[in-house]
Amino acid sequence: MMARFGCVLVWLVAVNSAAAFAPTTTQNAARSLALRMTTESAAKDPVKVGVIGCGRIGIVHLGAINKAPGVIPVIVSNPTISKAENAAKTFGVPKFTSDAMEVITDPEVDAVWICSPSQYHADQIKACAANGKHVFCEKPIATDLAETVEAINACNEAGVKLMIGLQRRFDPNFLRVKTAIQNKEVGNTIIIKTCSRDPSPPPYEYVKGGGGIFNDMAVHDLDMTRFLAGEDPIEILAVGSCHIDKSIEDLPGSEAFDTASCIVRYPGGVNAMVDVCRQSSYGYDQRAEVLGTSGMIATDNVYPNTAKIYKKDFTGNADMPFDFFLSRYFEAYVTETEAFCKSLVEDSAVQHGY
Amino acid sequence: MMARFGCVLVWLVAVNSAAAFAPTTTQNAARSLALRMTTESAAKDPVKVGVIGCGRIGIVHLGAINKAPGVIPVIVSNPTISKAENAAKTFGVPKFTSDAMEVITDPEVDAVWICSPSQYHADQIKACAANGKHVFCEKPIATDLAETVEAINACNEAGVKLMIGLQRRFDPNFLRVKTAIQNKEVGNTIIIKTCSRDPSPPPYEYVKGGGGIFNDMAVHDLDMTRFLAGEDPIEILAVGSCHIDKSIEDLPGSEAFDTASCIVRYPGGVNAMVDVCRQSSYGYDQRAEVLGTSGMIATDNVYPNTAKIYKKDFTGNADMPFDFFLSRYFEAYVTETEAFCKSLVEDSAVQHGY
Amino acid sequence: MMARFGCVLVWLVAVNSAAAFAPTTTQNAARSLALRMTTESAAKDPVKVGVIGCGRIGIVHLGAINKAPGVIPVIVSNPTISKAENAAKTFGVPKFTSDAMEVITDPEVDAVWICSPSQYHADQIKACAANGKHVFCEKPIATDLAETVEAINACNEAGVKLMIGLQRRFDPNFLRVKTAIQNKEVGNTIIIKTCSRDPSPPPYEYVKGGGGIFNDMAVHDLDMTRFLAGEDPIEILAVGSCHIDKSIEDLPGSEAFDTASCIVRYPGGVNAMVDVCRQSSYGYDQRAEVLGTSGMIATDNVYPNTAKIYKKDFTGNADMPFDFFLSRYFEAYVTETEAFCKSLVEDSAVQHGY
Amino acid sequence: MMARFGCVLVWLVAVNSAAAFAPTTTQNAARSLALRMTTESAAKDPVKVGVIGCGRIGIVHLGAINKAPGVIPVIVSNPTISKAENAAKTFGVPKFTSDAMEVITDPEVDAVWICSPSQYHADQIKACAANGKHVFCEKPIATDLAETVEAINACNEAGVKLMIGLQRRFDPNFLRVKTAIQNKEVGNTIIIKTCSRDPSPPPYEYVKGGGGIFNDMAVHDLDMTRFLAGEDPIEILAVGSCHIDKSIEDLPGSEAFDTASCIVRYPGGVNAMVDVCRQSSYGYDQRAEVLGTSGMIATDNVYPNTAKIYKKDFTGNADMPFDFFLSRYFEAYVTETEAFCKSLVEDSAVQHGY
Repeated sequence: MMARFGCVLVWLVAVNSAAAFAPTTTQNAARSLALRMTTESAAKDPVKVGVIGCGRIGIVHLGAINKAPGVIPVIVSNPTISKAENAAKTFGVPKFTSDAMEVITDPEVDAVWICSPSQYHADQIKACAANGKHVFCEKPIATDLAETVEAINACNEAGVKLMIGLQRRFDPNFLRVKTAIQNKEVGNTIIIKTCSRDPSPPPYEYVKGGGGIFNDMAVHDLDMTRFLAGEDPIEILAVGSCHIDKSIEDLPGSEAFDTASCIVRYPGGVNAMVDVCRQSSYGYDQRAEVLGTSGMIATDNVYPNTAKIYKKDFTGNADMPFDFFLSRYFEAYVTETEAFCKSLVEDSAVQHGY
Repeated sequence: MMARFGCVLVWLVAVNSAAAFAPTTTQNAARSLALRMTTESAAKDPVKVGVIGCGRIGIVHLGAINKAPGVIPVIVSNPTISKAENAAKTFGVPKFTSDAMEVITDPEVDAVWICSPSQYHADQIKACAANGKHVFCEKPIATDLAETVEAINACNEAGVKLMIGLQRRFDPNFLRVKTAIQNKEVGNTIIIKTCSRDPSPPPYEYVKGGGGIFNDMAVHDLDMTRFLAGEDPIEILAVGSCHIDKSIEDLPGSEAFDTASCIVRYPGGVNAMVDVCRQSSYGYDQRAEVLGTSGMIATDNVYPNTAKIYKKDFTGNADMPFDFFLSRYFEAYVTETEAFCKSLVEDSAVQHGY
Repeated sequence: MMARFGCVLVWLVAVNSAAAFAPTTTQNAARSLALRMTTESAAKDPVKVGVIGCGRIGIVHLGAINKAPGVIPVIVSNPTISKAENAAKTFGVPKFTSDAMEVITDPEVDAVWICSPSQYHADQIKACAANGKHVFCEKPIATDLAETVEAINACNEAGVKLMIGLQRRFDPNFLRVKTAIQNKEVGNTIIIKTCSRDPSPPPYEYVKGGGGIFNDMAVHDLDMTRFLAGEDPIEILAVGSCHIDKSIEDLPGSEAFDTASCIVRYPGGVNAMVDVCRQSSYGYDQRAEVLGTSGMIATDNVYPNTAKIYKKDFTGNADMPFDFFLSRYFEAYVTETEAFCKSLVEDSAVQHGY
Repeated sequence: MMARFGCVLVWLVAVNSAAAFAPTTTQNAARSLALRMTTESAAKDPVKVGVIGCGRIGIVHLGAINKAPGVIPVIVSNPTISKAENAAKTFGVPKFTSDAMEVITDPEVDAVWICSPSQYHADQIKACAANGKHVFCEKPIATDLAETVEAINACNEAGVKLMIGLQRRFDPNFLRVKTAIQNKEVGNTIIIKTCSRDPSPPPYEYVKGGGGIFNDMAVHDLDMTRFLAGEDPIEILAVGSCHIDKSIEDLPGSEAFDTASCIVRYPGGVNAMVDVCRQSSYGYDQRAEVLGTSGMIATDNVYPNTAKIYKKDFTGNADMPFDFFLSRYFEAYVTETEAFCKSLVEDSAVQHGY
């Protein structure tokens, strides 16, 4: 099945105030971050935040808030209040509640982190705007385009900031590619390629009603190509298929796909190629490659350490090295023979004879 | 057990006419070789050679002679004459014999390839010299120093060329390191490191009486460090141990070792570090590394193709990649949080917000 | 500009007798080839061939014919006869002519290698068929579909073999990927990716009238995806753009592209992604990657040797390593602190304390 | 100059209470650490520490103390009191002083971090012991053996813990090698290799009086081989030379070396090879390799991100890829020729013909 999308529908607004990208030296970004976190933390009045939702992603953001300097969590909410209570205890947050509106209306709160299920996002964003709170919201802004536009407008009118969490833009690897493009380290961009492969497919329940692989998975990659291209796309060609879990094949539209390929066309002539798959037996695979007029930059996956192991039949190479000196050095034997014969014919010294 | 060697004893003369090393561009050496072999082959009168010994190494040299342009085999010998006959048939050699002296005295022969067991080398070299034949001889020249000197002198006096086959000097990988040194691509040499690990240990019978790991195995590495250093060493520090096949532990001297480490000191201040082992479960391991004042050059092993395979737990890395977005992008979540808080505090646009 | 192709037009028939793919162990294919070439060459009556065209590709095939056992060139032709004469001399071919028909009708010739410009292919194939000669022809069979079908039919009717040269199918790297698929080393194929980037763009004259980037360049990649998929595609989505040499932008159709991206859909649900570019500043780039249900296989480019050089700012990595122990070991300092504090609190020995 | 050391003198006691090494799964160690730091930090009463010395290494430890959960700094000292004040302000430490003894005698302090110059270490350790404070001390314990033993004895008698900071033991990369050894992932250890190369040489003043390259630099590597071998060495063979800064050549003993090579012999038959150099133009180089009876594990250097850049002549490879299809696919052309000829001779389908 081939699908061609209007771009807008699948496209998320990352932030409502467009920012010029200001590359920083990334040489020691990760570590200098660590130092900054230590040394700058006491500096200013911290930003006080509330977090709606204490599920998996809410906990991630609470962890991140706790590590980031200059920001402290003051209230968390979750419909199952025991989850809110546990999160509050774990992260030392003074208040917890089962009611998201208590977070949104809390007078102490400067900004709200919306980590609730997607269907609540638009309403909660609008409520934040109505209460003058800045908003950090997990993707998506809303589940349809009209509501998306409405929520953005509400923030703009209220003068509050709205940021959508597409965390890959802050990853040191993807960021290094962006920096290379900005600095023209590989010249002008010709083609952008990304791939995203999850370790294992999500449960049927997650896929069903999730809006399909382009919405719930490829969105990060599509955004990354936009981030790297530095402009909005004009057309997307996309196809999908089902290889892993045949039980989803009967779901509607792109919910039936666990694998997809896209070509994203940008106005400047740059094309981006994206492939995504819900299963990668060799682990979470997240790579990018940019070909430019004077070079290429490519990222690899991230491992906990640099150690490589070489064992019989498992060196990472498809085959073992040439098996002994006869095969390994066969060319050398021929060249050696040539060299000696040349020295005989020319009555000269042997090359490489020392 | 620690051993310190006089250098001369373990050191092989590679060729009796010292040659200045003339590096060639190696970019396409292997392939241009292929073309040269095709295009130049008809050029001059070929060198006619006889080969003594049709065992494993004799067959390798016959194969190499057949691939090298400008040289043709005219006679082969082997004590078991059926082996000589088979080799002659396989490689299209017109004459075969059981008697090495028939090769050495054949009036048609310009040069003799000595591929017999080590104990015959010295006498056969001297016989070649007496008959005015050039000599290509597999290592070693002889089994002791006195005979070695005698054989070299015989060739020098007779005015015939003598080349000892240390084929690694002609390998594109090691040769590239030599070229880098000659061209000062990494500055002045500081340290040289090589390692040699055989796929599996030789049989007890090969080790016993073979003169030990320094003579029968490390000799190639010691020669390589000398080739790369471009001078003769002044001292060798060496130790050995037995890890693989405990049955050799009772053999005398360094025959009891299947693993050895050496530091070879060169007069210019360069030290070379060599380690050898008779077993490498992950295949034949032959690498070199040179640190210079302005860089490093290092070679890897040679595989039949460039394909890499990534499977569960077998990617070549000691560990799998970070397992999903929570761990993979944890740093990114923190940086993202910081970025949004910074934009709130400074009322500025979010960095990387596009 | 977006183009969707009927598949047939851009698709080349590789050989008229469909062959089951019979993978061989590739472990030492390259080298055992070398040995085979030596040892088997005398075996049977050689195939006698004539070569039409002594341009660049004709010379390549003459070189290959000279290296392959069991085949000998007996006549070559080129309209500029001096080129034919030179080729004959270089490769030891007894006869040469300016007239291709003399090759095709030569009674000694078993098979003809057609290395002439594309517009002559179809007629020469049909002439070969008429004369009962087997045909090896460089791509394409013809410049349009009708002639293509006609030429194939002519060979089938005459009972002569017709092979089109798509040499990548015989490359050890691509072949290794094919073998992995055949052996299900990475499970069932999910997605195929290839990229092809030429070192530098061809001259304007080559591009003009060449039929465009899909015909003169991507054809190899499209064929490779078909070779790897093992079936014929059902649809191709393709886009192109011009980044390198703006002078071609006014050429018609896909002749105006120097960069193209394709998604090729196969009936089994496999999608292939192909990107090609006429310029790669970092050298000829030819890679393939196949994701399967149980792993991934990927090939890298081919270098003359395995040596890597590490210099200031040029290690291959986008950035230098962490610059000294403070940044390199920052995590270790934290873990160390934790470990000591843990031992104090628990009055236990320090972990990793040896 | 060749030096052979008694082992004790150059050997540092890492911690006075020997600990069995308890490997943990390192898969996500770094990240799970981050989570642990967040979630466990409130758990127990924190360890209160004082830090002596606010120079470079003191600041590193203050940073690490601030990131580690369960530990808080309560007092810092530095002879130049403004440095102590700045450090206190930066890290939020309530007390600062110019007098190290005020740290050692502070009743609030549980443990003292000694980050003063080496010559004060022994006395300060003994003072800590006398005051019942646990001690974390930067290497070395003392500048001679007698004082070293005395300081250790003082701690043992007072029943306080003493840990010497050799942070590489806590680095995820080296630690992964240790884990592999413990888990016999590469079988029994045969040989251990490490190399350490600093980005640039220290100033003359640092080298002079520093005790030489084995004491001030190789100590980390020697300790690492001991950590990996899991036992104390029985002999060290070592040589040194001067390549970088000739001004140090006149310094006494091993202070005259900027490069050194060591072989460290362990009682179990394992030999370790260590090379160190005070200059690496390609950045801080810190690698380890262990050969075992069933495999090899090797670590690489650590970069801020995984991005690789490929540009003309700077791909990390010593040479560019084969330059175009003629050289890249030369072997393929030969194999292709063979395949077609084989199909002619045998009247069979062409292999790889699809």
